[in-house]
Amino acid sequence: MTPSDPTGGAAGFGLAVRGVDGKARLGGIETAHGPVRTPAFMPVGTAGTVKGLLPEQVRGAGADIVLGNTYHLMLRPGSERIARLGGLRRFMNWPGPVLTDSGGFQVFSLKELSEITERGATFRSHIDGGRHELTPERAMTIQNDLDATIAMAFDECTEHPASRERAKASMERSMRWAARCKDSFAPRDGHALFGIVQGGTHDDLRRASAETLVGIGFDGYAVGGLAVGEGQDEMFRVLETTVPHLPEDRPRYLMGVGRPDDIIGAVARGVDMFDCVLPTRSGRTGQAFTRRGAVNIRNARHRDDARPLDETCACVACGNHGRAYLHHLFRCNEMLGPMLLTLHNVTFYQDLMAGIRAAIAGSRFGTWSAAFLEGYRSADAPLP
Amino acid sequence: MTPSDPTGGAAGFGLAVRGVDGKARLGGIETAHGPVRTPAFMPVGTAGTVKGLLPEQVRGAGADIVLGNTYHLMLRPGSERIARLGGLRRFMNWPGPVLTDSGGFQVFSLKELSEITERGATFRSHIDGGRHELTPERAMTIQNDLDATIAMAFDECTEHPASRERAKASMERSMRWAARCKDSFAPRDGHALFGIVQGGTHDDLRRASAETLVGIGFDGYAVGGLAVGEGQDEMFRVLETTVPHLPEDRPRYLMGVGRPDDIIGAVARGVDMFDCVLPTRSGRTGQAFTRRGAVNIRNARHRDDARPLDETCACVACGNHGRAYLHHLFRCNEMLGPMLLTLHNVTFYQDLMAGIRAAIAGSRFGTWSAAFLEGYRSADAPLP
Repeated sequence: MTPSDPTGGAAGFGLAVRGVDGKARLGGIETAHGPVRTPAFMPVGTAGTVKGLLPEQVRGAGADIVLGNTYHLMLRPGSERIARLGGLRRFMNWPGPVLTDSGGFQVFSLKELSEITERGATFRSHIDGGRHELTPERAMTIQNDLDATIAMAFDECTEHPASRERAKASMERSMRWAARCKDSFAPRDGHALFGIVQGGTHDDLRRASAETLVGIGFDGYAVGGLAVGEGQDEMFRVLETTVPHLPEDRPRYLMGVGRPDDIIGAVARGVDMFDCVLPTRSGRTGQAFTRRGAVNIRNARHRDDARPLDETCACVACGNHGRAYLHHLFRCNEMLGPMLLTLHNVTFYQDLMAGIRAAIAGSRFGTWSAAFLEGYRSADAPLP
Repeated sequence: MTPSDPTGGAAGFGLAVRGVDGKARLGGIETAHGPVRTPAFMPVGTAGTVKGLLPEQVRGAGADIVLGNTYHLMLRPGSERIARLGGLRRFMNWPGPVLTDSGGFQVFSLKELSEITERGATFRSHIDGGRHELTPERAMTIQNDLDATIAMAFDECTEHPASRERAKASMERSMRWAARCKDSFAPRDGHALFGIVQGGTHDDLRRASAETLVGIGFDGYAVGGLAVGEGQDEMFRVLETTVPHLPEDRPRYLMGVGRPDDIIGAVARGVDMFDCVLPTRSGRTGQAFTRRGAVNIRNARHRDDARPLDETCACVACGNHGRAYLHHLFRCNEMLGPMLLTLHNVTFYQDLMAGIRAAIAGSRFGTWSAAFLEGYRSADAPLP
């Protein structure tokens, strides 16, 4: 996709597919705020900060794009305030593109605090109990205030499990909302609006949702309503039945995913973009991702171990600090522990994506994936 | 002081006084682990980390030396463990010299958890209730395990207020302990042991303490038992009566001080070294130091203010982020808020010391101090 593409993507925004290996795609997305190499993982910066990291550390780890949460930002500090301060990127001093979710996922998670109608959702703030409304139109206004490089359609993330009837009604409402989003979205060069496929685990609903969205026409397509408890096998199956109905020339984004093996499996099924709180949240609780799987640094086995978390990692935590020190920091509840483990985990995820991209470029994604997963599923290095 | 100084400083450790302006001294301390420019402020790294900062950020802010706390480190992770891991500097990846306190200050703060005899102190850990002992000899062993560049004598920080009788008995015990520390300290090239002057606010006791310590012979001399509630005027008075009894060729260290105006006043009275938790602790609670005094970033007046904390500051927080963003981070309890404010405050303190050193070098310490304090005591910049 280029700005001049006749099928009608936003000017200055587009995916160039530079290579394929099976269904895995290597590409680059052009945006108003710089390029995104795909497959891409977006660190989550919920309230305008990737928790525990300076923006330059996020960039230095290799991230091209970060995610912000509309729900959190509309409540604090408020989207109008962020607009006055020059948009989210300037507010948080992030030099690259940002993608914002629509707020729907959080609002529907509030359950008893929210009420849903065809018009949209009203809800009480979890912070001060104040009443707020989110509709497709309001979600577009807020994301415009935030100056999101990529805005997401306001949709309903269907719960799991959901009956076919429930999944169908929920998906169809999301499709009506998607059309309203498209209508009220203010196009700007290099900015994009993505639609979100719903339909639970029902193949025909997923296909209908994808076809409806493609009919409306979006700059990219997300697959929503997964990683909500259905399990990896079922998630992969839904991707296999959904992705073929999405246009090849637009980015495909699997929302809220996931673990390294989830990402590898989804890339193999044609997905280009991911986000997940796992690397940052795990980093704060002492879980580190390594080439040999997850490590809980709080475990006593690390207390005399001067080796880095991961010998092959180039991050500051691995370059400058041993496990014994990281263990000590977590045992003492020192801020530097979460800071260093978050930096490591975000670096690990970006290195994972770089490895995936290099493997696709070299037409060896299958063998690379198998080797990575074999290492990832092996035990942590034995004590020295 | 040079390594060959006939008065007997430790080999490879010494103060070179490079300029004086009134009683203020400009100098450099040579150590086994690199030089320290004086007057120097040592950020506090209690448990082997300056809270909220990477070691390279502490270094980048201009700090030559950091302080570690024997009490905390002996309990967690244990000084023998740190010795096995190569000493505190290697453990925390700090490239410069470290000064460790003796643990006495914390132990005596425990009060009902500790018992003091002529032999030393026994106490229960605030972490797990385990029984521990600190004596002059044990404090030397632990600080040797930590590979402290500068070890401090084990002393009793006399409480304030203290009767003359109480202050005398306490000081005299500290002097007996100082002699035991000197006897059991294992000298190594470029490593130092400092004695600590006590005596409360009693001039004759301070003088007697200083003379006793000089008689024993230390590589540097600290003034302890101040900044414990006596007030700035009284603190300055004690410095004026104490410092003249300390040798000119050894570093003078005012422990636990302090606010910028305390530091400037103490430098004017001949002090070379400082430490205080104020820049780091304040940074975590939202108080920032600026050229125009302290600013509480949580105050609502900052919520729409895109300007930096301090226009003249070159730190990352001031260079890349506005007050509105910092305010937001603290309102949302985001880790990045304390991280950025700590970085700013530590930078502010190092800039303060650099300003002091430049002013002494230029023989304009008096006018510089007056101008700095006038600015520091003015109100925060008006809203734009």
